[in-house]
Amino acid sequence: MLAVLIAFPLSGQQALWGGEDIISPEIHPDNSVTFRLNAPKATTVQLTGDCVPTRKQETPFGTFDVPGTVNLVKNEKGIWEYTTPPLESELYSYSFLVDDLKINDPNNVYMIRDVASVTNVFITGGGQGDLYKVNRVPHGTVARRWYNSPTLGYDRRVTIYTPPGYEESTDNYPVLYLLHGMGGDEEAWIALGRTVQILDNLIAQGKAKPMIVVMTNGNVDQEAAPGESSLGFYKPTMQLPRTMQGSMEESFPEVITFIDSNYRTIRTKSGRAIAGLSMGGFHSLHISKQYPDSFDYIGLFSAAIRPDERVQSPIYDNFEEKLALQFEKKPALYWIAIGKTDFLYQANVEFRQLLDEKGYPYTYYENEEGHIWKNWRIYLSEFVPLLFQ
Amino acid sequence: MLAVLIAFPLSGQQALWGGEDIISPEIHPDNSVTFRLNAPKATTVQLTGDCVPTRKQETPFGTFDVPGTVNLVKNEKGIWEYTTPPLESELYSYSFLVDDLKINDPNNVYMIRDVASVTNVFITGGGQGDLYKVNRVPHGTVARRWYNSPTLGYDRRVTIYTPPGYEESTDNYPVLYLLHGMGGDEEAWIALGRTVQILDNLIAQGKAKPMIVVMTNGNVDQEAAPGESSLGFYKPTMQLPRTMQGSMEESFPEVITFIDSNYRTIRTKSGRAIAGLSMGGFHSLHISKQYPDSFDYIGLFSAAIRPDERVQSPIYDNFEEKLALQFEKKPALYWIAIGKTDFLYQANVEFRQLLDEKGYPYTYYENEEGHIWKNWRIYLSEFVPLLFQ
Repeated sequence: MLAVLIAFPLSGQQALWGGEDIISPEIHPDNSVTFRLNAPKATTVQLTGDCVPTRKQETPFGTFDVPGTVNLVKNEKGIWEYTTPPLESELYSYSFLVDDLKINDPNNVYMIRDVASVTNVFITGGGQGDLYKVNRVPHGTVARRWYNSPTLGYDRRVTIYTPPGYEESTDNYPVLYLLHGMGGDEEAWIALGRTVQILDNLIAQGKAKPMIVVMTNGNVDQEAAPGESSLGFYKPTMQLPRTMQGSMEESFPEVITFIDSNYRTIRTKSGRAIAGLSMGGFHSLHISKQYPDSFDYIGLFSAAIRPDERVQSPIYDNFEEKLALQFEKKPALYWIAIGKTDFLYQANVEFRQLLDEKGYPYTYYENEEGHIWKNWRIYLSEFVPLLFQ
Repeated sequence: MLAVLIAFPLSGQQALWGGEDIISPEIHPDNSVTFRLNAPKATTVQLTGDCVPTRKQETPFGTFDVPGTVNLVKNEKGIWEYTTPPLESELYSYSFLVDDLKINDPNNVYMIRDVASVTNVFITGGGQGDLYKVNRVPHGTVARRWYNSPTLGYDRRVTIYTPPGYEESTDNYPVLYLLHGMGGDEEAWIALGRTVQILDNLIAQGKAKPMIVVMTNGNVDQEAAPGESSLGFYKPTMQLPRTMQGSMEESFPEVITFIDSNYRTIRTKSGRAIAGLSMGGFHSLHISKQYPDSFDYIGLFSAAIRPDERVQSPIYDNFEEKLALQFEKKPALYWIAIGKTDFLYQANVEFRQLLDEKGYPYTYYENEEGHIWKNWRIYLSEFVPLLFQ
């Protein structure tokens, strides 16, 4: 009785304004997925996202695959509905288009922000997607901390994963520094990258060594992710000043010093990896060659390679000389991954040609599709088992 | 050039599908707020939330104030628009109704989940709302950790705030255990309660002692918040089994043991506070009287008081005897707060009558409105400065 009395007014007053009991998305045993929306006055309702076939879009820069749309139809109860064919095991994101207005699914509270867009997500199991699920395995700790950056002149936020058992142990642990792309921040690998789940699951399966993962903010003009800084709740933008002009690379030793001072780490090259996607791959490339004694494992995921030629920074000077020194010191792993349709594919071909010419050893991983988080999650789950072995 | 080439396809391929450059909400210097939506095919667009005047809703349980609606109108560019009068400084949540379909604002990436509803949020400054903003002050650390619960039989997730300076210090710190209400979880006080910002700001202002804040999950049948457990991405519900049947209170010493084993805490009654809202206030009441040597500071925010009479648990036996023992041991602060229109107001009147009859000292804080997060944020910001002084 009390429970009923509590529950009703809570929902009446705030929690459940207008909630209707619709399940969407509903994932069926064969991984087909039903989407539902109650929109009685709508003329058309469509589904868009990476769970529907792409369409080609012509642009001045070329032809790109962009998310297509499929139509929902009204069922006998007046609810708009669509069921996909069985989907491969993955993490998918989607939105509805109601009379062309893009909206989130009001029956799905799970969403991920990518720059200024928030889309709903779901995971289908039975394969790669299982790595992205929270399973009943030992869980690491995720901390959002702030460190002082004397170089940049303010406190900055960083996301740190410590593996299961870290707090109970007295051992020192290796560290993976994991860098985001343009438009990302210290939340990107957690939210879009499912880093915590990938690490927890790979460690539980015995496929990865327990390691600390440090997810920095690579936008040197930014204290923290949008909404987490003194700038308040502003609308995020894709490009930020000074992200690929050398300051990130110059200030990076501060992060290492902070981590080594605050965690039980292996404080040598053999205990450090650095990897990143796109701009973060670019940062990983240039940081690892700038500090050739710091990282034994380097991962370039869909990486940008060369700086804009107008940029003046000592970080980018003497590219080949620094690379020669880095490889002279024999990194344990130099891992390059890219998808066949990635717009940075050719830049990576040219970079690999350079490495081949010089006889620098690297490991190459190529797969389908392009510059998308699906690939970066795959690259992380392929890369992590190779570290600190 | 490279930057442009990177930026375009990134947005083309994934990040900025269909983003239009509309600012919504736009907070003006006088705290009036403009909302905007591009919905060319819509017939009506309305704003609802706690930033518009309430309306009365009749129900079988009585008349409740529920969020009202106001109409947006199309401006000269065809964008739907509405500007509020100046709003008091607060955190507000809102949604749009497009032809009666409730949607999130596609131009505002800031949202908070409350049970199964996700609404957009914004903060107006110049008063109470400033406590809820991230300001350029020293920031504490927020960790999501898992601890083993032998009583409940599985690992459970807990959110822990450590104050600025904790990591650099060797001091022991006092601990506030902060409990959520029905429908909440270990994310509720962080997301809806702005605990981190309130603590960072009050500590920076010298109004609160640096303290650790432990936000537990009070649903004993739940490993973790929705989406953070092995149950996956299910639709959250308001009521969960066994939340007010004694198991939370019985298992609570495990949490204290975990915190005291993993943090530099003051391990005595004078170094511990417990507070909660609604069901969490109920838990705080019953936990603090069950373990009368454990907490010197107790906060009941809009608390439920008495258990459902059908519930059998030794925790709830001998209510008055346990209360007598608790007050015999002279807690430093017994703080009761409630809003005038709260549906639990009368239950709190009766509880205070009991305390008055017995001569048990307590501090009472009453304000306007009812069972809403606005009040719980206010109560937290009033309560925290009273602790550990």
